[in-house]
Amino acid sequence: MAAVASPGPPSGTGIRPLILINRLARHQLSALFPFLQTRYRILDPIDESGPSFAALSKSGRVMLCVGPTPITSDTLDRYPSLECVVCSSAGHDHVDVAEFRRRGIRVTGAGDTFSDDVADFAVGLLIDVLRRVSVADRFVRSGSWPAEGNFPLGSKVGGKRVGIVGLGSIGLRVSKRLEALGCTIAYTSKKVKPHVPFSFHPNITDLATACDVLVLCCALTQETNHIVDKKVMLALGKGGIVINIGRGALIDEKEMVDLLARGELGGAGLDVFENEPNVPRELVGLDNVVLSSHVSYATHEAMVALQELVANNIDSFFSNKALQAEIGGNE
Amino acid sequence: MAAVASPGPPSGTGIRPLILINRLARHQLSALFPFLQTRYRILDPIDESGPSFAALSKSGRVMLCVGPTPITSDTLDRYPSLECVVCSSAGHDHVDVAEFRRRGIRVTGAGDTFSDDVADFAVGLLIDVLRRVSVADRFVRSGSWPAEGNFPLGSKVGGKRVGIVGLGSIGLRVSKRLEALGCTIAYTSKKVKPHVPFSFHPNITDLATACDVLVLCCALTQETNHIVDKKVMLALGKGGIVINIGRGALIDEKEMVDLLARGELGGAGLDVFENEPNVPRELVGLDNVVLSSHVSYATHEAMVALQELVANNIDSFFSNKALQAEIGGNE
Repeated sequence: MAAVASPGPPSGTGIRPLILINRLARHQLSALFPFLQTRYRILDPIDESGPSFAALSKSGRVMLCVGPTPITSDTLDRYPSLECVVCSSAGHDHVDVAEFRRRGIRVTGAGDTFSDDVADFAVGLLIDVLRRVSVADRFVRSGSWPAEGNFPLGSKVGGKRVGIVGLGSIGLRVSKRLEALGCTIAYTSKKVKPHVPFSFHPNITDLATACDVLVLCCALTQETNHIVDKKVMLALGKGGIVINIGRGALIDEKEMVDLLARGELGGAGLDVFENEPNVPRELVGLDNVVLSSHVSYATHEAMVALQELVANNIDSFFSNKALQAEIGGNE
Repeated sequence: MAAVASPGPPSGTGIRPLILINRLARHQLSALFPFLQTRYRILDPIDESGPSFAALSKSGRVMLCVGPTPITSDTLDRYPSLECVVCSSAGHDHVDVAEFRRRGIRVTGAGDTFSDDVADFAVGLLIDVLRRVSVADRFVRSGSWPAEGNFPLGSKVGGKRVGIVGLGSIGLRVSKRLEALGCTIAYTSKKVKPHVPFSFHPNITDLATACDVLVLCCALTQETNHIVDKKVMLALGKGGIVINIGRGALIDEKEMVDLLARGELGGAGLDVFENEPNVPRELVGLDNVVLSSHVSYATHEAMVALQELVANNIDSFFSNKALQAEIGGNE
């Protein structure tokens, strides 16, 4: 992966600014953000502790929050000088935005950095489920083609009625791609989007009734938790397909597994799950599902773009320039 | 699968017209064309033989040729009254069009019936190879996610320079879809296509040099046999990808396998192979390839459309109406 250029400390003082880190142990900072050590002093509670850490942590003004690492009130209490949290994830369900606002702490996210890649992956999952690409790949690799001959027919992508759940940055990109594939687009979203030519359904059950496929592109919030419940999946029906590149908890996973296994839901393309990295065992035996490991955003190109966004936001903070992809600023 | 309506004999005489059949034993006529027995008298050399067959075969004026079943001069010699062959496949490399023309026999194909589905599948293979969808599916199904954690990054679809080899019915549809995914399109074809905004390369090696991906959409002819040879694949390079939804023999398969295994070609999405249903063993062990069993055309919807086209062409022949998707007629 190409790294962001490291011209030296950004402030021009020769003293490297202090950056607080909030990450899970599995996040490898040097691999994800190789420029950090060169440009900044890093204060990482996973690597350090003791009196000097406690003292330094009181003066840190900026925090880098890696991926979906939760930030609680307790976390914030430990860093009384915190003014800005630079998050590296597209979703911000791990961040209590209202609490940040109360404390006057600014938050930035990944903005649109991952939107194209996530939309591409959603389309890939949809084609795969309808046209059985992964199943065919298993069929060929297992040596079944000469032995069994013909492979079951797939279902045409063109003409499918696709319902986008959440017509934001990612949902709009999904709809543009699926239009080029001949699908008919409808959507539900917090509010009607002006200037889009797709039919709006205020209710997700109505959307599911009118569609062959649902693509989940919305953020996970209290309102959207289990937004795809048994009723919605039954409305989608036996030929219906769910694509989830949002968050696992958007779907009532237990109900979905039951409906898929019983043939009451037609198929699913799932990049996210309720209890990652654990995937319900029952799904592994099904040929009407395509499963991936929360990688819809994960391309070399997007990671380089993310490094640039994070570096720019940290530098902008210290030089009082405008932050990019600020969360909750104008909501 | 929905069948074509069977209103009875098409000629209005009450006598069912005679249809000759040319198929391989693995083609199940009743499954593929369930309307045939009701509407026509079927003369099928695989099911019948003997003196009555020999006598009837002399009077057959129309033949249904199923899939890529070869039609040789010997075949034609057996049917002296033959005036029209209705083929059900999109490609016609199994038909000697010049020989048919010499004999004054008309030939129809599947026309555009499969073009959208084949183009969708090509896009599915391309997203799969770049974003590693099938590999991720294997990773999750094998239980590796909790054990191994992070999955390697994929490569972004947007921004890729894609070279279409053969900008006909399928190639144009592939280019339209990939433009919506943010790819840059170039092409090579028998001649420059007016009215398309893509850059034309008269030479496939030059196209490969200028591109990250080649998508093979051309017919298999003497000229295109092994059109993707070692030189072309080396021009495409270590990061290069080949997608083949045309015919296996468009690629020098042995060279491709060597280059893929040695990492001198980046990846491949292959729906077709030189010696189907046999797939080179070495491919089965590679994670940079996606393999499918010649199913790019195979959807329920396309098979219904094909049944309609075949029935319409047979009926049109007997009622002296215009044939659809005639091959070689205006070439």
